[in-house]
Amino acid sequence: MAGYHVAVIGATGAVGQTMLRVLEERRFPVGALRVTASARSAGRVVTFRGEPHTVVETTEAAFDGVQIALFAGGDGASGQFGRPAAARGATVIDNSSTFRMDPDVPLVVPEVNPHALRRHRGIVAVPNCCVITMVLPLAPLHAAVPIRRVVACTYQSVSGAGQDNIDALLEQSRRLLAHPDLLQGRPTPSEVERITGTPLPVAFNVLPQWKWMPGGITEEEQKIVHETKKIMEAEVPVSVTTVRVPVVVGHLVALHVEFTGPFPVERARAALSAAPGVELADDPEHGRVPTPLYATGRDACIAGRLRPDPTVPYGLALLAAADNLRKGAALNAVQIAEVLVRDSLLTGARA
Amino acid sequence: MAGYHVAVIGATGAVGQTMLRVLEERRFPVGALRVTASARSAGRVVTFRGEPHTVVETTEAAFDGVQIALFAGGDGASGQFGRPAAARGATVIDNSSTFRMDPDVPLVVPEVNPHALRRHRGIVAVPNCCVITMVLPLAPLHAAVPIRRVVACTYQSVSGAGQDNIDALLEQSRRLLAHPDLLQGRPTPSEVERITGTPLPVAFNVLPQWKWMPGGITEEEQKIVHETKKIMEAEVPVSVTTVRVPVVVGHLVALHVEFTGPFPVERARAALSAAPGVELADDPEHGRVPTPLYATGRDACIAGRLRPDPTVPYGLALLAAADNLRKGAALNAVQIAEVLVRDSLLTGARA
Repeated sequence: MAGYHVAVIGATGAVGQTMLRVLEERRFPVGALRVTASARSAGRVVTFRGEPHTVVETTEAAFDGVQIALFAGGDGASGQFGRPAAARGATVIDNSSTFRMDPDVPLVVPEVNPHALRRHRGIVAVPNCCVITMVLPLAPLHAAVPIRRVVACTYQSVSGAGQDNIDALLEQSRRLLAHPDLLQGRPTPSEVERITGTPLPVAFNVLPQWKWMPGGITEEEQKIVHETKKIMEAEVPVSVTTVRVPVVVGHLVALHVEFTGPFPVERARAALSAAPGVELADDPEHGRVPTPLYATGRDACIAGRLRPDPTVPYGLALLAAADNLRKGAALNAVQIAEVLVRDSLLTGARA
Repeated sequence: MAGYHVAVIGATGAVGQTMLRVLEERRFPVGALRVTASARSAGRVVTFRGEPHTVVETTEAAFDGVQIALFAGGDGASGQFGRPAAARGATVIDNSSTFRMDPDVPLVVPEVNPHALRRHRGIVAVPNCCVITMVLPLAPLHAAVPIRRVVACTYQSVSGAGQDNIDALLEQSRRLLAHPDLLQGRPTPSEVERITGTPLPVAFNVLPQWKWMPGGITEEEQKIVHETKKIMEAEVPVSVTTVRVPVVVGHLVALHVEFTGPFPVERARAALSAAPGVELADDPEHGRVPTPLYATGRDACIAGRLRPDPTVPYGLALLAAADNLRKGAALNAVQIAEVLVRDSLLTGARA
């Protein structure tokens, strides 16, 4: 067998599908492929390198012989099968939040902290999609001048919440477009619910609506606060507001950053230009600004609108946008696999 | 004549139409109504209190006999006709940015600084729509505990840029919905332009795209920085990022506020509950959060997601949403007219 035995868990979902595409595009050395999903999706057929592959139900036995297990099945699949897969010898690369804050699990953006992969014990975690979008520009800036504090506001697409949410946005959009007067008038919650099927549609709206945690913050905000520190290996305080916007793919994050010393814009721009995984789109007068639609399908995090923030001693503001399915999830996972292979860090290789 | 002679300038636009509706709803004492617009729209007929009114071209002579001139025709109309209208004895209430930073022109949100109306010299300015959304909750908080600094990120609807932009969003949305694969794939700028007619559509996208000023900030950001200080009569530093989202009506603003002393959340919530023009929607677990769609058609600024910000000594974060055509423009203008009438502050009344 030339190549590795790879499993993709949650292969029928938005991230799983992107993962298969990214493995193909990057010619990852896949010798054998197993695609799994929940019982509901078992039996479906997905395509990889032009060949059909039948999806099997995720079970512990499905990991027999697997060397690299790419998990894209959410917290449910990862919680149930992540450790068993690792115990059977697979190196687990997990897109869910299940293991991210486990001190024994490296949380890795390969352009930022690849060294953390050396101490994995069978499981590596892919960070939250907004965190990846943020740390790609923040890490090189922090390396140049240490960061004192970050205020972040997110503009997150619905695909971060899965294919069902993409379908819902498109369907809600179609329905509301049939009632343009409603959007300009005074829509009552009951009218909105009658038309869209929900009192809080995301179409033609923005939703600060997430899983709530004690203290009034959202689970998404908590992830961003904790994961940023773990990846940057620094106690960078992050104050963040997470908001869902009616966009299919692509997260934008507005960053207002306070540094511990002087940081001229031109020096910051040079640091971002040289940063791996970052593309500067910073010529607003010619329409070059980070937008979700521009980031869609691209590998890089798009940074721009870099400018001084005169309201603090050493402040800069910027925008960052990335394809949340690709660099925010699938691509980052495959890049981790590439480093593990290159540096002989797979569980089996080290055994 | 029972009532005042009122003129609405730019009566066919998104704000002008809202103004006529608000004058009706609030039973403003309109004795005679003149509706004007650019030559292009002259001859069109608008409805007020069930009666048709023919739109005439805005000229200096059109202000003869007018006591209250509500300008909703943008910087062009205000720049050309604002001072001439005031010179002819009308009290001008102007929605454009033309006069806002003029030291002789009060910039007024009636719930916040009605006292400023006493020193008008014929022209009163209505603030930028985001500024109104921000200062309604910030002013009562600042009165309780002085603010040290504000970081604001905006989620602004397209109607702030006029009816043409509403039509463009709806048309772009229709066209892109016919290409759902494009939204999930890797849309090239040329494909996007072919389908939507623009390389930077706002539909299924967010646009950090405005009129650019020296230093990399946008004109909108500059307005927010300066107008907030003028209305609050305090040197409150505001660091702001403005972003347009695919929403028809309603602006949302995320606010991360640093105070000069302790400010428990419960005390802040009480201050907002008691604040005129503010409605608290702060029960996220039951779906009560500020959203543009909820704010649409409402008079109040909707505040919520109030929570501590532990990254600064005395920090709070919150969201505010308002109908940018209504409280962000037309309603605020009519409320100014109401105070001028109530306190006998019209130009003629004082002469």
